[in-house]
Amino acid sequence: MAEEIQQKNNDHLVQSADPEHPANKIPDLCRRFYNWGWVTGTGGGTSIRHGDHIFIAPSGVQKEMMQPDNIFVLEFPTPKYPPSERKYIRKPLNLNPSACTPLFLTAFEQGAGCCIHTHSQWAVLVTLLVEREKGPDACFEISNIEQIKGIPRGKGKGMLGFFDTLSIPIIENTAFEEDLTGSLEKAMEKYPDTYAVLVRRHGIYVWGDNVAKAKTQCESLDYIFQLAVEMHKLGLPWVK
Amino acid sequence: MAEEIQQKNNDHLVQSADPEHPANKIPDLCRRFYNWGWVTGTGGGTSIRHGDHIFIAPSGVQKEMMQPDNIFVLEFPTPKYPPSERKYIRKPLNLNPSACTPLFLTAFEQGAGCCIHTHSQWAVLVTLLVEREKGPDACFEISNIEQIKGIPRGKGKGMLGFFDTLSIPIIENTAFEEDLTGSLEKAMEKYPDTYAVLVRRHGIYVWGDNVAKAKTQCESLDYIFQLAVEMHKLGLPWVK
Amino acid sequence: MAEEIQQKNNDHLVQSADPEHPANKIPDLCRRFYNWGWVTGTGGGTSIRHGDHIFIAPSGVQKEMMQPDNIFVLEFPTPKYPPSERKYIRKPLNLNPSACTPLFLTAFEQGAGCCIHTHSQWAVLVTLLVEREKGPDACFEISNIEQIKGIPRGKGKGMLGFFDTLSIPIIENTAFEEDLTGSLEKAMEKYPDTYAVLVRRHGIYVWGDNVAKAKTQCESLDYIFQLAVEMHKLGLPWVK
Amino acid sequence: MAEEIQQKNNDHLVQSADPEHPANKIPDLCRRFYNWGWVTGTGGGTSIRHGDHIFIAPSGVQKEMMQPDNIFVLEFPTPKYPPSERKYIRKPLNLNPSACTPLFLTAFEQGAGCCIHTHSQWAVLVTLLVEREKGPDACFEISNIEQIKGIPRGKGKGMLGFFDTLSIPIIENTAFEEDLTGSLEKAMEKYPDTYAVLVRRHGIYVWGDNVAKAKTQCESLDYIFQLAVEMHKLGLPWVK
Repeated sequence: MAEEIQQKNNDHLVQSADPEHPANKIPDLCRRFYNWGWVTGTGGGTSIRHGDHIFIAPSGVQKEMMQPDNIFVLEFPTPKYPPSERKYIRKPLNLNPSACTPLFLTAFEQGAGCCIHTHSQWAVLVTLLVEREKGPDACFEISNIEQIKGIPRGKGKGMLGFFDTLSIPIIENTAFEEDLTGSLEKAMEKYPDTYAVLVRRHGIYVWGDNVAKAKTQCESLDYIFQLAVEMHKLGLPWVK
Repeated sequence: MAEEIQQKNNDHLVQSADPEHPANKIPDLCRRFYNWGWVTGTGGGTSIRHGDHIFIAPSGVQKEMMQPDNIFVLEFPTPKYPPSERKYIRKPLNLNPSACTPLFLTAFEQGAGCCIHTHSQWAVLVTLLVEREKGPDACFEISNIEQIKGIPRGKGKGMLGFFDTLSIPIIENTAFEEDLTGSLEKAMEKYPDTYAVLVRRHGIYVWGDNVAKAKTQCESLDYIFQLAVEMHKLGLPWVK
Repeated sequence: MAEEIQQKNNDHLVQSADPEHPANKIPDLCRRFYNWGWVTGTGGGTSIRHGDHIFIAPSGVQKEMMQPDNIFVLEFPTPKYPPSERKYIRKPLNLNPSACTPLFLTAFEQGAGCCIHTHSQWAVLVTLLVEREKGPDACFEISNIEQIKGIPRGKGKGMLGFFDTLSIPIIENTAFEEDLTGSLEKAMEKYPDTYAVLVRRHGIYVWGDNVAKAKTQCESLDYIFQLAVEMHKLGLPWVK
Repeated sequence: MAEEIQQKNNDHLVQSADPEHPANKIPDLCRRFYNWGWVTGTGGGTSIRHGDHIFIAPSGVQKEMMQPDNIFVLEFPTPKYPPSERKYIRKPLNLNPSACTPLFLTAFEQGAGCCIHTHSQWAVLVTLLVEREKGPDACFEISNIEQIKGIPRGKGKGMLGFFDTLSIPIIENTAFEEDLTGSLEKAMEKYPDTYAVLVRRHGIYVWGDNVAKAKTQCESLDYIFQLAVEMHKLGLPWVK
């Protein structure tokens, strides 16, 4: 009987000896992100697309202690709204799906293979500095920093060059994370080449064609945001 | 004979193969907190309520090297004063009970399942900035930061929202840690919804309904304090 | 057949049970450097000379996950240009050689045993502060700091003393990393005693007579750059 | 023959299965200190007195990779000068004794059980701030910070209280570490209650009655120095 329930819940989808399997990779990534201070206190989230399956970390779980057994699996494509129509093929008992789900789905609809959401303090500070210095509609811009070369120029367009200007759109935060979806979609329409969207006073969504790209792009951006905050403290301008 | 003494001292209360058992969990938490710089040089402390038993880390022990064998166990409820009447059912030889004991008991009397005390530098700096900017009677306040949603609105009232203002009371430090108990109680009466009290020039007490909640609330608050200090350095106001 | 290809590709050159073997040491160093934030998002690189073989980390690989199998091996000496004439004796399938290759070769031609390239934020900030305070042609200079004694006075000349002034030349960044080679060579001619060259808005190249010296010199310089940035924030001059 | 040399060199003095044995404890401590950034690039050092033996980390070794086999052993008491008369009973082949040796001996002559020397950047910055704000003869002073209670009031005098002022003398750096001994001795005479002496532009020497006390006092002081630098950045005075 216990076995029957387990089968019904498709537990086999999150059981693999391969460390690169999404159900193992998401907890591994979350542990790493926790140590960088990106997913403090159950904040943030991570999702991976694997064929027609979307693997998603749950809501409200201590990220550094997550287990493969905690992972939700959605069939892809799936309706974004209403939530009740999303085609879950595995739901861990006693856990809630991530509030980031529709935002992750938006990235996957654009072809992403992995999407990461962090509460990085550097990202939050950058959104506040841009608002004060350039106004609420401005995006974050920086140029002439080597690490910019870690960010793509756009889908299939290669990477940004050293002399290019990196632009990351910023959207306003909302009371409920799900309600960010509309403005995230608009930002992605307005900036079709972007692989990341900052959320004011909240954090960032970063995606990539696959897990390694999402992770390294997220790292490069965080490096750039930290550098930008330190440059600001020292009175050094972001764009040459 | 050795065995007899051991039995008398109820060593079985701190012996378990379950990593979630309080006698294992407290050393595990303390190791983690040490790495965040929260319990440097034997500072800080942690306590867990488990049924009618209170498990408490000892005083003056290097927190990252703590062992289950070092844990004190109190029967709960127990008299807070005088200390001599507290009903210890296990006392490690050669160790002293934590000076935080009556403060932890105060939190448990309010229904907490776990209480954490740190010397976080961000907490200390925030108490100093509030005193200078708003006066000695002011509490720490911040709003419109996503991480605020990691803090409860009050017992059984759900979590704070993004547009809410988080308020953490601040009490003045005393020569002896035990003597904080009175003002901690007063702060809890004045702010019945709070899950944390800052201590000026000292650190913070954070509690939660259970271990996971106390830990993640402590993390979220520390994230917020660090962000607040950085915001202050950059001339960004805490309340929108 | 598979075995034959493997032999042709000289896989035995990167297979050793000795943790000090370059093919094991480079991944070990990269993991350490990743944790210091020096090689975020596939940035940076490391190379070791071992007799007439040069071992080089590949381009575009997550540095903390690198494996011995990912390491390129070049015969030394080898032509620096054109790249097509470089004498690779092992090339991992599906990986590209590091864009730092000609820069590493420049260091090896001067007798280095190991060369490290990082994107350290402290290094980047120092290049920006020097440019603003002293102009584009100035080098970084600091004196009267104990850690300076961790940097050699020049090949075979012993270490710098506490009262000496440490000078690190700074070259301008280029669109393509390979194109730094010319100005790196010029900086090494102009500063024949230097064991490091900063690259503006990019990072640093550090080398040493062997692995331990390259690593500890890189660490000492990074310590000095971090201290220098903090000193600048506090209004403390770098040269007494 | 090889065995004979080994016996002559008293290798048994550094071979123990007990992790608390000084020859195991020193490498363990150095690994921890390296991760705090205290002994970057072979800087700093640690020494433990065990009965009439002094165990000392060697000079110029990567501190996080140190092995018990690298430890020097001196008979205690031993002449401080000239170095050639110091009674080494174990000298690792190919290593040099720490330049800190006479400074460690000074602490042991005062009854210390363990002495730690770090290049902590917070310590260095504090020495520079004190010099600029209060002059070259001033010592570091801070009061009304809870962590001060982690520092002894003096030998056999208990710990400092919250309202006490912690005073740490500062001596000027010299070209050669050995030459600090005279001024260290003078500082210890002038401040007979101190358990630490700061060295301008260099770092700190901290000692304690035993290993745990030296380590936790070193941690508490480093916490206080970091807090003091941040307080200074925020315009907050060190003494209330």
